[in-house]
Amino acid sequence: MFSQSKTPAPAEENSASPSMSRRGLLTYGGAAAAGAAAGAAVTVLITQNAGGDAAPAASASSESVPFYGAQQAGIVTAAQDRLHMAAFDVTATNRDDLISLLKDWTAASEAMSAGREAGDTGAVNGPYDAPPEDTGEALGLSASRLTITFGFGRTLFKNDAGTRFGLDSRLPEGLIDLPHFPGDALEDNRSGGDIVIQACSDDPQVAVHVIRNLARIAFGRATIRWSQLGFGRTSSTSREQQTPRNLFGFKDGTANVKAQDDELLDKHVWVPKSSSAGEDWLTGGSYMVVRRIRMHIEIWDRTSLGEQETLIGRTKGSGAPLSGGEEFSEPDFARAGRDNKPLIATDSHVRLAHAQSNSGVKMLRRGYNFTDGSDSLGRLDAGLFFIAFVTDPRSHYVPMQMAMAQKDRLAVEYLRHTGSGVFAIPPGIQAGGFVGEGLFS
Amino acid sequence: MFSQSKTPAPAEENSASPSMSRRGLLTYGGAAAAGAAAGAAVTVLITQNAGGDAAPAASASSESVPFYGAQQAGIVTAAQDRLHMAAFDVTATNRDDLISLLKDWTAASEAMSAGREAGDTGAVNGPYDAPPEDTGEALGLSASRLTITFGFGRTLFKNDAGTRFGLDSRLPEGLIDLPHFPGDALEDNRSGGDIVIQACSDDPQVAVHVIRNLARIAFGRATIRWSQLGFGRTSSTSREQQTPRNLFGFKDGTANVKAQDDELLDKHVWVPKSSSAGEDWLTGGSYMVVRRIRMHIEIWDRTSLGEQETLIGRTKGSGAPLSGGEEFSEPDFARAGRDNKPLIATDSHVRLAHAQSNSGVKMLRRGYNFTDGSDSLGRLDAGLFFIAFVTDPRSHYVPMQMAMAQKDRLAVEYLRHTGSGVFAIPPGIQAGGFVGEGLFS
Repeated sequence: MFSQSKTPAPAEENSASPSMSRRGLLTYGGAAAAGAAAGAAVTVLITQNAGGDAAPAASASSESVPFYGAQQAGIVTAAQDRLHMAAFDVTATNRDDLISLLKDWTAASEAMSAGREAGDTGAVNGPYDAPPEDTGEALGLSASRLTITFGFGRTLFKNDAGTRFGLDSRLPEGLIDLPHFPGDALEDNRSGGDIVIQACSDDPQVAVHVIRNLARIAFGRATIRWSQLGFGRTSSTSREQQTPRNLFGFKDGTANVKAQDDELLDKHVWVPKSSSAGEDWLTGGSYMVVRRIRMHIEIWDRTSLGEQETLIGRTKGSGAPLSGGEEFSEPDFARAGRDNKPLIATDSHVRLAHAQSNSGVKMLRRGYNFTDGSDSLGRLDAGLFFIAFVTDPRSHYVPMQMAMAQKDRLAVEYLRHTGSGVFAIPPGIQAGGFVGEGLFS
Repeated sequence: MFSQSKTPAPAEENSASPSMSRRGLLTYGGAAAAGAAAGAAVTVLITQNAGGDAAPAASASSESVPFYGAQQAGIVTAAQDRLHMAAFDVTATNRDDLISLLKDWTAASEAMSAGREAGDTGAVNGPYDAPPEDTGEALGLSASRLTITFGFGRTLFKNDAGTRFGLDSRLPEGLIDLPHFPGDALEDNRSGGDIVIQACSDDPQVAVHVIRNLARIAFGRATIRWSQLGFGRTSSTSREQQTPRNLFGFKDGTANVKAQDDELLDKHVWVPKSSSAGEDWLTGGSYMVVRRIRMHIEIWDRTSLGEQETLIGRTKGSGAPLSGGEEFSEPDFARAGRDNKPLIATDSHVRLAHAQSNSGVKMLRRGYNFTDGSDSLGRLDAGLFFIAFVTDPRSHYVPMQMAMAQKDRLAVEYLRHTGSGVFAIPPGIQAGGFVGEGLFS
């Protein structure tokens, strides 16, 4: 993860271009070359180290993912291992300041996604008498498949005081306030926000570096409302990834929409062209629903294996549905056992979450496990930070969550939702543009 | 990190021995073979995947580190990338229950260190009507260089009510209550504890899995008092590791004692044979000092590069001392610049932390960066979770910290200590024994 060069870099004397990669900058006499991997929208950094021997740094986690594209990165990108997400309250009061914030964030995000410092006068080559434009803790680390994804909350468009930034006519209909669900225990300081930024990377220090620098850049214009770290992605978003496990110890996300499923993505994830001109800016974007779901893991851990599998509806080992087969077998909800009861219980998680129970809707889930230390009772403050991208939260999240909160015995007995947010995810950014540009045209 | 096998494992039908590795257990038709890497006390797992093609999983992070040895693992072990540490309050009141807890923890720790489940009847092969002896979220993950290190706090030996477990005659003199240092803002629920467990791994889910399962095993006998996650080790403990960066963006731990420095380890880290028979159990062990150090990073980030470097006493890019040279050059504290002032300021961090300012003492630092979300003012709750192993906190920590808390401008202006602990680290465990066994003989 760290550069292998043994010779420390006299970076101050380095005449490298400011746009050079962090890795290249710190490698004594190093030269960085960027080339697109054949057939994949991925840039691979090749580093030549001090000894002169070519050291291809092209492990999976040293790759960089392009920031520009038709969609924002970090949605169908194969899920990385670590998350730092932050929601901001915008404190700027006029439209120009908001636009300049979004422009500054766009420039810094593009640079960091490519493995460069957040600004041209970064931690090692800036003027001596000014704060560096990069905080430095990611120097020497690769981009580690970093993606940075922006979303807009309902309160950016209007709040109790009325319209904000002249944007209320651009508020998309799907950007709703979620209803109260049974069992919700939402904390205000873990919910909402005008703008959300999702930073995902295979290296947590790279993801934390992003949120920190974007918060630094926002000084005087926006402040962090809440932030959340996550590890151990809980859903695979690519057929090439194995299904990971959540903190209940079960495989999670087996039935997820995958990056390879173009048709499903169009139907369930991307926002189609709207009949309302005010919503045009969101065409080709998506909605992100986030829920911080605390798990009562101490109680769960004292539950029998049989009870755990009954609640989930799948086996713990392979993840196969209790109706038989293997992980990717379709659950057979009608199949009954010896006592004539269905093998997959009517109040099981897999049944209630399945598209078949939800008018055929699917979502692209991209959540992470979290552990935020322990609470005053010595219980781990741990669970699932649920992230889903959907074409419309009204059809693709609310009905399913209402059913689960009422009927799913797993949700009722072992889960508590402590944070929540819904954000409109604008489509991708083109070079020269900035995130959310369509909102202001 | 996840097994690459595409074919899900029908693990329930698997007749594998319960002592088989998690990875082997979940690989369909897989066979796990363990062999010692030549010349290193490291076990490498080789996995054959479903397709029959040999897939050597022997990346650095898939290795396992032996739990048994002359010293506990996790001290001179090359620092892993992730930390989960927890301090426990023992609620058991008699000596036998404490001993059985330590025995149970030892058995589970040995198993998890080898990449196996925490108990024989784990998440996938246990009886259907009993809670599994492993919580399952690390199934399919390798050991990822996991180490588990145990330490005992002063309150295990005696507290305000008097002796505990008949251990007060075994309280080592070095296991002190730290004095109050200027600027301390210690929180009770982040400090102290009867027993500490440090789990380090290259995979956070593996480290979290350890603390969770040891807490589960402790049910009714000990509860978590505090826990802390860390990422991005801030000190290298091996000459083969590059010096990483802390959240000030500077290289940290350049002058650290390394695993290769046998003589320094004997002098500064390991506890020598004591003249007091009551302390014999600690011979060859160490002391661990932990401090949760919150950094005022938002203020730091608005400080000029020059001021940052002056406060630290090193350049931000290469980490070279301001007196010249490169990272590993010895600082020349006498060398003055044009204005006749020393190039390395008298109140700089590198000068006050240097052995030369501290009667020649050194420590083995093994800390981690942390970010625990954000506070109510939108500031990242981030900093350094300081961990040091020393031969005696009275000589090797207190004087240095007192000097830094009083004179080090970096510490005074940018740091706040919010958590603290001192623990006696018993020597290593042999097969058949249990951690801290010497305390009870």
